[in-house]
Amino acid sequence: MAHLTPHVALGPGAEFDLIRAMLDAWGDIAEGIGDDAALLVVPPGERLAVSTDSSVEEVHFRRHWITPEEIGYRATQAALSDLAAMAATPLGILVALSIPDSWRRDIGAMAAGIGEAAREAGAPIRGGDLTTGAVLSLTITVLGSASSPLGRGGVKPLDHLYVTGALGGPARAVEAWEAGEVPGSWCRERFARPRARVREARWLAARGAHAMIDISDGLASELRHLAHASHVELRIEVERLPCGAGGSWREALSGGEEYELVVCTPQELDVDGFARTFGIPLTRIGQARRAEHPAVTAMFRGERVDLTTGHDHFSS
Amino acid sequence: MAHLTPHVALGPGAEFDLIRAMLDAWGDIAEGIGDDAALLVVPPGERLAVSTDSSVEEVHFRRHWITPEEIGYRATQAALSDLAAMAATPLGILVALSIPDSWRRDIGAMAAGIGEAAREAGAPIRGGDLTTGAVLSLTITVLGSASSPLGRGGVKPLDHLYVTGALGGPARAVEAWEAGEVPGSWCRERFARPRARVREARWLAARGAHAMIDISDGLASELRHLAHASHVELRIEVERLPCGAGGSWREALSGGEEYELVVCTPQELDVDGFARTFGIPLTRIGQARRAEHPAVTAMFRGERVDLTTGHDHFSS
Repeated sequence: MAHLTPHVALGPGAEFDLIRAMLDAWGDIAEGIGDDAALLVVPPGERLAVSTDSSVEEVHFRRHWITPEEIGYRATQAALSDLAAMAATPLGILVALSIPDSWRRDIGAMAAGIGEAAREAGAPIRGGDLTTGAVLSLTITVLGSASSPLGRGGVKPLDHLYVTGALGGPARAVEAWEAGEVPGSWCRERFARPRARVREARWLAARGAHAMIDISDGLASELRHLAHASHVELRIEVERLPCGAGGSWREALSGGEEYELVVCTPQELDVDGFARTFGIPLTRIGQARRAEHPAVTAMFRGERVDLTTGHDHFSS
Repeated sequence: MAHLTPHVALGPGAEFDLIRAMLDAWGDIAEGIGDDAALLVVPPGERLAVSTDSSVEEVHFRRHWITPEEIGYRATQAALSDLAAMAATPLGILVALSIPDSWRRDIGAMAAGIGEAAREAGAPIRGGDLTTGAVLSLTITVLGSASSPLGRGGVKPLDHLYVTGALGGPARAVEAWEAGEVPGSWCRERFARPRARVREARWLAARGAHAMIDISDGLASELRHLAHASHVELRIEVERLPCGAGGSWREALSGGEEYELVVCTPQELDVDGFARTFGIPLTRIGQARRAEHPAVTAMFRGERVDLTTGHDHFSS
């Protein structure tokens, strides 16, 4: 176990060679690494938002699916997505890696992917931990600040429900790989290079959003979280769901690891302005309703349909 | 991948059963878990100190060495030790766990150990991430605040060098286990139940300490970090080293994962007052000297001796 340590203090050990490879890949997006803990200043009047997220080989990805750069990039965007969901501004990133021998020569490329995602978010890499281990694992901790953070519990009856981007790509990429096929390029890109909707979230928060959540475990599952935390019924019209590359609404509902945002707002949003600004769609998919018991209902052309459940790694 | 989510939103899945077991073990030391990111307030005028630390099975411990409670307790204390080294006050903890099937029934006990360490530090558990995986891995992120954080770069020539506690126990415990023997109870306890020196660090900082570091990779290795970061020579008198349970000074110098503190202060400290307050010794072990090149020198009865190196997981 070693903390990431700056060039000046690096000794001759193999551990330090790995750290040096990471620092070389990061360049000036790594900042002030070297003490036992990183020091950050949270802007006065703002709260700190912090989240941690693990990507584990054979659980979240397989080696032949994506490149080491993409493994690093994806793990970091997945973590940043939790800051986006709170409408927080990223302040910094900590990177805890467990690296088996068979992955050691890929550490520079993996770090480059982490660095690219950090750069896009404007979040310096402030430290981390490096250890060996039998399984490749990346645990990324993201720190941000927000003056008015959004949570899951703020949905009000009559709020409109929107979702960013187009859904279903990552799940279809995984399905293709698991079947020994090559996924379509859009689906592959959505799995390998998701983008945390950090700027989009701030746009949405500035327009009065009441609540937000990112889609890590599938839209249906995240809607249930929102409904329970806010004690409302969320009624979605599945024919409105933005399905990517000819996918079905069932795929859009159940597919996980999208890292798109579901947002609830009291008034209708300028979806054209959003699309022009960010180059992705913003789609109204339903509405919140007052309810005795929290619920998610799905309607297809006015008829209620069954919801599939989200992904659960521990179900067997 | 799932964020730890509160009781109210828990569905019927196996993943949620595991989260429920953890929340049950934590009780009121878990706080506000449920949104995508945890929100914390850093006291005005203070900086945030944050660090992340992984404990991986077969790297940092083996299954038959210590109990699941101890695995959780130890991983959390190890992470908290980085806050101690900065003289920071703990604010919160995030827990990222990767749990193989064979460890699932132990998750409540592991969480109890994590909770015990969090309670001792006064640091609520604020969130985390739970995933399956082929290897048991705990990545603990600790957050704290400090008005005058201490680093590694503040050592001044003529500063006195002190170390808390008694050294060598964890390394001797590991040696015994690896040889198929039962370690002595003091050595075992030092490995299984280390204590982050959080209160001790604040006592030391209040008495004018210039610099501090915790001993995760072995005293000799940490002294080198201090010497390089501060550009001084650190000269230690090895016969002064506090060796536990009849250990040798070489064991005290090289043994890792002690989680004791090395501290540098301009004046001599009240070691008796320290021992009375905290129940562990504080020992003066040497002094800093002005030097052309950063160095650590070890003297035994006035003669210079060779230093063994610290532990490097990646050397083979």
